[in-house]
Amino acid sequence: MQEIGIGIVGGGYMGKAHAVAHAAVGAVFGTRLRPRLEMVCASSAQSAEGYRQAYGFAHATSDWRTLVNDPQVGAVIIATPQETHRPIAEAAFALGKPVFCEKPLGASLADSRAMVAAAEASGCANMAGFNYIRTPASQFARKLIADGAIGDITWFRGEHTEDFFADPAAPATWRTHGAANGTMGDLAPHMINAALALIGPIDRLIAEVETVHSKRPGGTVTNDDHAQMMCRFANGVMGQMYFSRIATGRKMGYAYEITGTKGAIRFDQEDQNALWLYRMEGPDATRGFTKILTGPDHPDYLPFCQGPGHGTGYQDQIIIEARDFLRAIETGQPVWPTFRDGMEVNRIVAAALQASEQKTWVDVATI
Amino acid sequence: MQEIGIGIVGGGYMGKAHAVAHAAVGAVFGTRLRPRLEMVCASSAQSAEGYRQAYGFAHATSDWRTLVNDPQVGAVIIATPQETHRPIAEAAFALGKPVFCEKPLGASLADSRAMVAAAEASGCANMAGFNYIRTPASQFARKLIADGAIGDITWFRGEHTEDFFADPAAPATWRTHGAANGTMGDLAPHMINAALALIGPIDRLIAEVETVHSKRPGGTVTNDDHAQMMCRFANGVMGQMYFSRIATGRKMGYAYEITGTKGAIRFDQEDQNALWLYRMEGPDATRGFTKILTGPDHPDYLPFCQGPGHGTGYQDQIIIEARDFLRAIETGQPVWPTFRDGMEVNRIVAAALQASEQKTWVDVATI
Amino acid sequence: MQEIGIGIVGGGYMGKAHAVAHAAVGAVFGTRLRPRLEMVCASSAQSAEGYRQAYGFAHATSDWRTLVNDPQVGAVIIATPQETHRPIAEAAFALGKPVFCEKPLGASLADSRAMVAAAEASGCANMAGFNYIRTPASQFARKLIADGAIGDITWFRGEHTEDFFADPAAPATWRTHGAANGTMGDLAPHMINAALALIGPIDRLIAEVETVHSKRPGGTVTNDDHAQMMCRFANGVMGQMYFSRIATGRKMGYAYEITGTKGAIRFDQEDQNALWLYRMEGPDATRGFTKILTGPDHPDYLPFCQGPGHGTGYQDQIIIEARDFLRAIETGQPVWPTFRDGMEVNRIVAAALQASEQKTWVDVATI
Amino acid sequence: MQEIGIGIVGGGYMGKAHAVAHAAVGAVFGTRLRPRLEMVCASSAQSAEGYRQAYGFAHATSDWRTLVNDPQVGAVIIATPQETHRPIAEAAFALGKPVFCEKPLGASLADSRAMVAAAEASGCANMAGFNYIRTPASQFARKLIADGAIGDITWFRGEHTEDFFADPAAPATWRTHGAANGTMGDLAPHMINAALALIGPIDRLIAEVETVHSKRPGGTVTNDDHAQMMCRFANGVMGQMYFSRIATGRKMGYAYEITGTKGAIRFDQEDQNALWLYRMEGPDATRGFTKILTGPDHPDYLPFCQGPGHGTGYQDQIIIEARDFLRAIETGQPVWPTFRDGMEVNRIVAAALQASEQKTWVDVATI
Repeated sequence: MQEIGIGIVGGGYMGKAHAVAHAAVGAVFGTRLRPRLEMVCASSAQSAEGYRQAYGFAHATSDWRTLVNDPQVGAVIIATPQETHRPIAEAAFALGKPVFCEKPLGASLADSRAMVAAAEASGCANMAGFNYIRTPASQFARKLIADGAIGDITWFRGEHTEDFFADPAAPATWRTHGAANGTMGDLAPHMINAALALIGPIDRLIAEVETVHSKRPGGTVTNDDHAQMMCRFANGVMGQMYFSRIATGRKMGYAYEITGTKGAIRFDQEDQNALWLYRMEGPDATRGFTKILTGPDHPDYLPFCQGPGHGTGYQDQIIIEARDFLRAIETGQPVWPTFRDGMEVNRIVAAALQASEQKTWVDVATI
Repeated sequence: MQEIGIGIVGGGYMGKAHAVAHAAVGAVFGTRLRPRLEMVCASSAQSAEGYRQAYGFAHATSDWRTLVNDPQVGAVIIATPQETHRPIAEAAFALGKPVFCEKPLGASLADSRAMVAAAEASGCANMAGFNYIRTPASQFARKLIADGAIGDITWFRGEHTEDFFADPAAPATWRTHGAANGTMGDLAPHMINAALALIGPIDRLIAEVETVHSKRPGGTVTNDDHAQMMCRFANGVMGQMYFSRIATGRKMGYAYEITGTKGAIRFDQEDQNALWLYRMEGPDATRGFTKILTGPDHPDYLPFCQGPGHGTGYQDQIIIEARDFLRAIETGQPVWPTFRDGMEVNRIVAAALQASEQKTWVDVATI
Repeated sequence: MQEIGIGIVGGGYMGKAHAVAHAAVGAVFGTRLRPRLEMVCASSAQSAEGYRQAYGFAHATSDWRTLVNDPQVGAVIIATPQETHRPIAEAAFALGKPVFCEKPLGASLADSRAMVAAAEASGCANMAGFNYIRTPASQFARKLIADGAIGDITWFRGEHTEDFFADPAAPATWRTHGAANGTMGDLAPHMINAALALIGPIDRLIAEVETVHSKRPGGTVTNDDHAQMMCRFANGVMGQMYFSRIATGRKMGYAYEITGTKGAIRFDQEDQNALWLYRMEGPDATRGFTKILTGPDHPDYLPFCQGPGHGTGYQDQIIIEARDFLRAIETGQPVWPTFRDGMEVNRIVAAALQASEQKTWVDVATI
Repeated sequence: MQEIGIGIVGGGYMGKAHAVAHAAVGAVFGTRLRPRLEMVCASSAQSAEGYRQAYGFAHATSDWRTLVNDPQVGAVIIATPQETHRPIAEAAFALGKPVFCEKPLGASLADSRAMVAAAEASGCANMAGFNYIRTPASQFARKLIADGAIGDITWFRGEHTEDFFADPAAPATWRTHGAANGTMGDLAPHMINAALALIGPIDRLIAEVETVHSKRPGGTVTNDDHAQMMCRFANGVMGQMYFSRIATGRKMGYAYEITGTKGAIRFDQEDQNALWLYRMEGPDATRGFTKILTGPDHPDYLPFCQGPGHGTGYQDQIIIEARDFLRAIETGQPVWPTFRDGMEVNRIVAAALQASEQKTWVDVATI
């Protein structure tokens, strides 16, 4: 077993999730490379020290450059607002350090492209953090499709829907300002990443992006509440997507349906331990969607969850990300999703915004 | 109680369903106007006689004009292929006889417009047969929305998906030829009608209509397998629809989700006795989608189904249609959906076909 | 096609359901024997005449003997309170007329035994009306078990639960008096019949029968609110049952789970068009309960419901009963469930009441 | 923040789960008392050293006495086979060290009683590990009942069902020998604990315990495959339970239904992030079971899982146990479930075995 010092930039929600993941991943997966919580960075020295104690880091700093430059920090995790992703990543790559960056990759497509260039020039391990696709159910869906279990895909429908802004009386916050914090900036990337991973690249699309509640107590809303999209994948599959933060009743509506010539798959993150599979096999009388409970026979099922039905949850997705990041560092081989995959998501978002504004189909290759 | 002689043109699947419905509706709903199975018409004298005996009609004919002209026939039900709807309806209206016409109304928008003109000129009761929307669950959904139970609608998603042509090896039949028998011609009208009934008129839309399996054993397929649509309703609601006859695993995927500012509704005809309702009421800790089983407290629940959970099925939808048609005849008041409503569905189909061909948004008012 | 005059004793809820069923059954199933609504009997001449008009009978009477004796009445349906079942059935059998009797067969086990004796002595068709087991899903469950699809059965759990008396403030009615109207008398027979049909005869059992709300507005409750049972079937299967009219939230909780050595089956009448089937087949990774939507490939699916997912409902169960009764009359062969099957249900109820009182296991053979 | 050295006896499945939990709990819940992975004990020095490295303990031993006696070990977690629980616990309590013991508490009721006596004499924190009841959904169910949300309870049904021995061809293992490893010894305690926690003490019960597949490849089975029970709680509630390791298709069938006079609750661990709640409130037309997704508004929801729907899994239950054990140590107040609660579970198991053998109701007070 070897050790690597982990530096996490950002101590909030996602920083904490990654800190817990790196504290647990060695024992959970028996990784050869063992992470050590070396340094945490936050916007003030005081909050950084608070995070250090709370999560068990050795050191704290309020300057991300200190963290990136520290020789004890062998790998960097970026869990800060999007605007800051690019300089941190570029600095780390310049020093030859692997970087895991939370989704969405860059605050703009230009940023993401620069980050991909820096990553690839450095030859370092680089991963983008799209956690939801990490559930065993979704990884099994990918495998089923790749194995041809449902034949050729004919249709895809995906959504990422939540309802934290469904109530028009919910006051304006930092989330109601800045494209990066709106639905297309923050929620849509999860499902777009899933669509690319499950079906493949998107060729063209048309979309409508909309702010439904433009005034909220405390201010005007300057970013989008929901968006709908139709698209055509490179392999000819036709699809629809929908993203919303005003989807009343939806808590984690990360859901998709995939129809193929030999079967179909359905998934909803609100019941993340189940995958629904239909196959055109056997007599008609016994056909139907089968509710498969994920377990040890599925990819990425946590080894200590002995049987199916024991269940994995949100934090487990982050632990799996940690394992994969360590694996990428250790092997020097890229592990999906790389920065390039993250950039492709930004590209689809940019295409959708253009399609909505111009009210036309947009060819993604032109973006 | 008064009696009315019913003439049904078409003795196949839907003709039978209407015959059974009119045999049962009086007892089920205690209607004042009582239908009498007077005459059935089929393409040959032999099959007409077979239907007469099988369903219990007094007379049979192979000429729809005989049926329409018979003075004992007080009302006409059209359950024949779409191409024949117009002349039969026009002839009946010319004689001042009420007409119930199966969906979709006309084989073309022009036909439908002519049928509406004939109906309205005659002043006769006229109804279009969109049976699925007749379930108590869907009627309750309409009522909830009208009562403001889920606030202002922000999004609609509807589908009509089945899988009878999912298998590429399924041979070509009459269903694989003629626009009227394709997905947009035959399946889509059901959900388009639901969308109009639940949300309101559609202002503009964009669509993709596609034949996935263009060759089947026995011939080339000349109509569409599936289609996707995005639309904007007149009241500003944004929406998506999908129609398919190749939706592997879907048997009666007549399903919709409606999101509002105060709640949400979900329905799937595959479990037609349940409506899912979310409301932003009470403490967060006890909120969630409520699975309401339809019963006597809901509109159109069959009176002999004493309690919720007893369950209504496909034939019950047709019995409700029969009751409503009798009511329209008796009161002289239009009962939804009228021919005009049926024509609006044809208009949306025409707009979608144009949008798909031109690859642009189409303003429905221009159709 | 031949005709038979149907006489229905009792014009209330079930009488109406059977009247509608016999008006529809010929057209629905294309039966060779065609029923004619000949006479309806109710407690007063006025109500009988009301039923006659409402349901379309030729004649009405307030004396069941008149109905039974009328030569135009070829078969008798008993849909009156349990106390009256025996004399009506005996009179009909004495005249050689087939009898369909609503569940539960007799008001007492002695009555049921006498009715079976009369039926078998007459050689007439005789059927007991347990409608819920008639759904295509439950008939398919029987077939799957018989075909060995789930191997040897190891466990059975059944319930019949509703909530019409869940509210302690619900006033006393005729339903709160008389053993025949309590949970064991009225609800339990449905699920006991299902258990016998699905698994086989019961050897021994132990039960607890209880009145939870002994006082209600308007009076004292003298019959049982709910009951639980454990039993051992003759084939060694171990099982549990529960019956309740105070099962808050349950509307038609006619539900069972059957575990076998090769698979399992689950059913709930609240979603009566679905059967859940698990089979120990194929790789573990794709195993799970399959939600089968009943359709034309399943027994007793109504022929006009073209595809799976169209859905059958409560009234359709009664139509299927009508078809089977006609078939029994026509062929002279007994059709399940016969009076003898109905009597076996009474026997289990009697055994359960004794087990509850004596607080011991009861050997059914001793009853 | 203070630190405490944790010693875990047993490095297998549960030992690992607890090791991960104690590595994560501080960061997850921000506990004031912080665990330090001090020592792990396994049956051989080699495997102990393997666990030490894998899970990150400071020291390893093959002698549990060494672990218990080590002054750096401030609290002991017992995750060994049941037969060993008692001496380890007694030794730890004798030294005044808090003990967390995996379920079931003792290998026999006598062992459990001795362990309770030792625990209470020592005054030390003591907890029994029934992890499944720790899900936010089940903790919320307890709260709802305590708050009277569903009125007075009238019925309880619980099951713990899995299918790891459903296949008769599955070979005999250590699990097929020894009462402690059978269904009543190993699985039933989980649901019995839930029943006691949700409803209260059980007064009397009757049960059947059975070995269905007594011969398996590799040997004879000497313990039980499944068991059914009926019981009466001290508060008068009537209930049924079922436990099985041959419940084909069930992976984590830890499920219960609770009926009250004002509502009902349903839960199934296979979808552990959902609780179904029915309440007799509001108009009948909008009543139904509400599917509540657990989130921050529910007890014990993990703080880093921002919103409902993010989801908790198996390991999270163990992390919550770790938090509660630390809390008990820190405050000196007993935290449920204590050893006494664990002993009560053993008592019910003993009563059930007696009831099955004697085929009579058993009064739990006599055990």
